Amino acid sequence: MFEARFQSFDDRTEPAAAPRRVARLRAELKHRGLDGFIVPRADRQQNEYVPPSEERLAWLAGFSGSAGVAIVLADRAVLFVDGRYTLQVREQVDTALFVIEHLIERPPEAWIEANLPAGAKLGYDPWLHTVENAEKLAKACAAAGASLVPAEPNPIDAVWTDRPPPPLGAVALHDLRFAGEDAAAKLARIRAELAKARADALVVSDAHAVAWTFNIRGADVAHTPLPLAFAIVPKDERPALYVDGRKLANAVRDRLEQLADVREPSALDGDLAALAAAGRTVRLDQGTAADALARIVREAGGKIKRGADPIALMKAVKNAVEIDGARAAHRRDGAAVARFLAWLDREAPRGTLTEIDAVAALESFRRDTGLLKDVSFPTIAGAGPNGAIVHYRVTRASNRRINAGELFLIDSGAQYEDGTTDITRTVAVGTPSAEMRERFTRVLKGHIAIATARYPDGTTGAQLDTLARQYLWAAGLDFDHGTGHGVGSYLSVHEGPARISKLGTTALRRGMILSNEPGYYRTGAYGIRIENLVLVIAAPAVAGAEKELNAFETLTLAPIDRRLVALDLLTPEEARWLDAYHARVAASLAPLADETTRAWLEAATRPLE
Amino acid sequence: MFEARFQSFDDRTEPAAAPRRVARLRAELKHRGLDGFIVPRADRQQNEYVPPSEERLAWLAGFSGSAGVAIVLADRAVLFVDGRYTLQVREQVDTALFVIEHLIERPPEAWIEANLPAGAKLGYDPWLHTVENAEKLAKACAAAGASLVPAEPNPIDAVWTDRPPPPLGAVALHDLRFAGEDAAAKLARIRAELAKARADALVVSDAHAVAWTFNIRGADVAHTPLPLAFAIVPKDERPALYVDGRKLANAVRDRLEQLADVREPSALDGDLAALAAAGRTVRLDQGTAADALARIVREAGGKIKRGADPIALMKAVKNAVEIDGARAAHRRDGAAVARFLAWLDREAPRGTLTEIDAVAALESFRRDTGLLKDVSFPTIAGAGPNGAIVHYRVTRASNRRINAGELFLIDSGAQYEDGTTDITRTVAVGTPSAEMRERFTRVLKGHIAIATARYPDGTTGAQLDTLARQYLWAAGLDFDHGTGHGVGSYLSVHEGPARISKLGTTALRRGMILSNEPGYYRTGAYGIRIENLVLVIAAPAVAGAEKELNAFETLTLAPIDRRLVALDLLTPEEARWLDAYHARVAASLAPLADETTRAWLEAATRPLE
Repeated sequence: MFEARFQSFDDRTEPAAAPRRVARLRAELKHRGLDGFIVPRADRQQNEYVPPSEERLAWLAGFSGSAGVAIVLADRAVLFVDGRYTLQVREQVDTALFVIEHLIERPPEAWIEANLPAGAKLGYDPWLHTVENAEKLAKACAAAGASLVPAEPNPIDAVWTDRPPPPLGAVALHDLRFAGEDAAAKLARIRAELAKARADALVVSDAHAVAWTFNIRGADVAHTPLPLAFAIVPKDERPALYVDGRKLANAVRDRLEQLADVREPSALDGDLAALAAAGRTVRLDQGTAADALARIVREAGGKIKRGADPIALMKAVKNAVEIDGARAAHRRDGAAVARFLAWLDREAPRGTLTEIDAVAALESFRRDTGLLKDVSFPTIAGAGPNGAIVHYRVTRASNRRINAGELFLIDSGAQYEDGTTDITRTVAVGTPSAEMRERFTRVLKGHIAIATARYPDGTTGAQLDTLARQYLWAAGLDFDHGTGHGVGSYLSVHEGPARISKLGTTALRRGMILSNEPGYYRTGAYGIRIENLVLVIAAPAVAGAEKELNAFETLTLAPIDRRLVALDLLTPEEARWLDAYHARVAASLAPLADETTRAWLEAATRPLE
Repeated sequence: MFEARFQSFDDRTEPAAAPRRVARLRAELKHRGLDGFIVPRADRQQNEYVPPSEERLAWLAGFSGSAGVAIVLADRAVLFVDGRYTLQVREQVDTALFVIEHLIERPPEAWIEANLPAGAKLGYDPWLHTVENAEKLAKACAAAGASLVPAEPNPIDAVWTDRPPPPLGAVALHDLRFAGEDAAAKLARIRAELAKARADALVVSDAHAVAWTFNIRGADVAHTPLPLAFAIVPKDERPALYVDGRKLANAVRDRLEQLADVREPSALDGDLAALAAAGRTVRLDQGTAADALARIVREAGGKIKRGADPIALMKAVKNAVEIDGARAAHRRDGAAVARFLAWLDREAPRGTLTEIDAVAALESFRRDTGLLKDVSFPTIAGAGPNGAIVHYRVTRASNRRINAGELFLIDSGAQYEDGTTDITRTVAVGTPSAEMRERFTRVLKGHIAIATARYPDGTTGAQLDTLARQYLWAAGLDFDHGTGHGVGSYLSVHEGPARISKLGTTALRRGMILSNEPGYYRTGAYGIRIENLVLVIAAPAVAGAEKELNAFETLTLAPIDRRLVALDLLTPEEARWLDAYHARVAASLAPLADETTRAWLEAATRPLE
């Protein structure tokens, strides 16, 4: 069988150690004169994937979810998780030790306001909370008559004796034939934005923005080629890049020193304080800048301008080289996915395949391209009822056989140097029910509505989101996630600021890459999602048009399961779209396919009858 | 010919007087030690229609638009108007006296920040600005090194020697057979909301909310049966209603005194100060509460809770009696509109009708119902290129003949005791061009998409707006206004908080009435708009539905011009919707129609072939 190398199927937490660890934390807090401490699942840069050294919440509570917050007081502790983790948390966490609360419906602020004793001092690590988050917590503490106090160094680090060292992933230069714009040009654009925003310097607190700006990639966290690093870009002076020197080979250091002062991460505080003491106005990113950064600027007498990091938008708009790279990456990735789907169609009917087998096979086929750097996130592979769990990750405990008569949903992606991919296909194993086909077709109609949308320049993702839902709504159905997220270029598979969702207030700009992934989930039965990545392009010219129009080009190339399409529910235009898409898929992938896959591809992409 | 009684076609300002009036204001400002004064087009309650006594901006500058702000300094004056009025303002206002600025693109705050001399004292009337607006102005003054100072009484009132007295329109009880819920029950609901919001008292600063709460209507402004009045509703004590006693007949006063203390408007300040001095938390509506109210509470030591007036949402959700009333009003109104459209079809081909003739005829047919209280806004009647001016109001100067080969757009509404209407029809005079029919049909497709939408409970107007635009977008076209606004029940024709627009963040609730009015405007050529009012209802049950679904019931009943429909652009479902709508229109209106109109109606509503 096949083997997965970039993802594991184990739960790596030690819930049994939690009582001892919480007791040690409480002793430390008492020692420091604190009545409690708040533990977010976060690192200093609010990264989606954090290195093991930053997994304080998992270490403390035994909870391995990707979002959560704990508050530990002397006599009680509470753990906040969102709707994705309400089941998992009860399997992983000792509920005699931690009361479980809902992160969204009753967030920590609300709990603090209602429960923190008057006069209490609640500690927080100002490096792990954004400015806005710290303000909310401080306000909640004040409402309870208590106070929020910074606790540095982090009290957990004092008791976490076997804490892994911070990662030292080698920094690589991201070649111009992938990046398409050199770092000097990017820095010039950033400085122009700083001038417009009337700021003297930008703290680049988002590690992805650092990677993009300096055309570097790293290996500090799973699934995203991220170098953990900060930067300061002054409007007029030389930038500084804060990165552990042990990550830099000489050639890399030489190149970076042409652009910036290369400084140790520990020098950031002092440099920022010096800048602030000189009376400079410092721009802080409201999404990622730690409260600690704001405190440094404030205490040194500088002026803070909060706002969106201007790099986020620049990074989201891909240049021509990145776009060509994305097209090549998607062709390569599509060939691996087609090989997988052909394999699945051959193997699944035997009734012995499991979710883990499928994940390993797909990763293995991607590795066979010779260019796979990592998967872009842990594959979501849900057979039958597991497909209905939107953020499912298969473990050895949850692993399920793929049975006939079920749907199999597989959502996966790859990191190649020329592009990041993200694709979901839903496959019928055996004969699907009429209901499955009807629901699949409604999802497909929504997918096609986004894929074929025409919209004036300046339109936001919020304005398009309903197009993906309308056919489900008509049947009293919906899906409980956004329609699409931005995707990086050999960077994060979840990239801001644009998204297709009712919260997507950023205008879609030509060159942005987003996912188009409507779905439908029938709890306890099956899940459906059809996801392609799309690129925002100028729409083909229309006679008489009065507006600049945009449209999407679909980048992802892989067959959509025709056996799940209820043809009578499609309009002729929709059927034509699917046939044209399949013709393009076949023409693009056949040259890359082995003979077996090519035969399968031919059948899987033939026109609907 | 016919006569309009509720609307005039004159410009009623005296631009020639502006230099003298500005000079007198400047003298008054100097006398009071002020360096300038800001003059919004606003009354104390931020009403859309204000009484003549509050038309300070029109008196001063000669500008009669419905939105605008002037700033008068000792040596210069500037007038801010929005895109609707950029042409009109140059016809009405002496630009040697007033520099014209764009209200949205360069708002007063930006101008103040860049132009107000350091040290200057800019006066403002705290009764005419909301709290938020005053904060913005104060911040801009501070940024300029100047200060914003309250100027009471309003300096204009001191020099406006022939200022009309405030209106004394009689207050009428709004009968329970129209209101559907008595005032005591409404007050109980308001108090429950206050308890939820942890406030001790609500200042009802929106006169529409006062009217709704106490089931009264008035006659103080044009087109909306509004009694200018304030109220204070304490959580536990007896409410107070602030209204000029001269507006109250004995029977009305007796009824109101059963519900509340009836107090003179001049008592409001003192009563509010007393409440605040007792340490109460006072809820102020962020949309309408004057800064003066916040100052009174603050100065007396009370606590302010700003937020949306809870009455706004209650008022927007119509009860069963109001809904029945709306249906009856729309049937009656539809009959008058059908009579008008039949008349127009007979008369227009002669080539002698003007826009004013059409407005007068339509108003006259509505008056003939015997139940018309007022038009709900000045009719927009645009022939040919005038139809492309979205907020056009015909004057004797602009009045245009309705010519063959042109489109005629007429947007009008009525106030009946049982309901407020608002309808737009676009009519072909002579033979329309292929382009006109194509554009009309795209607008119609958007209208039908809204009319037939199914959406989960909790969906906002922002989520539906794109449905109305998608067919225009596909052709590179769009319209530059929202798709729909809320409508009151024998109250304002523009009612919050819900709307169908990308800014419509309020969830649509069953019982809300909104307009559905996509359009298309070809500058210098023609305008198209198709507007019906729709009611949010529970969608018909769908087998297998997992969500509570809502839908719209179209209330407005009048033919949509079949001659403008390009049948080949409609789907079979869309054509069926129009035929079914027309069948309903015919069945509803024929019994109310005279013989000529009935014959016309039969032809105008026959199925598309």
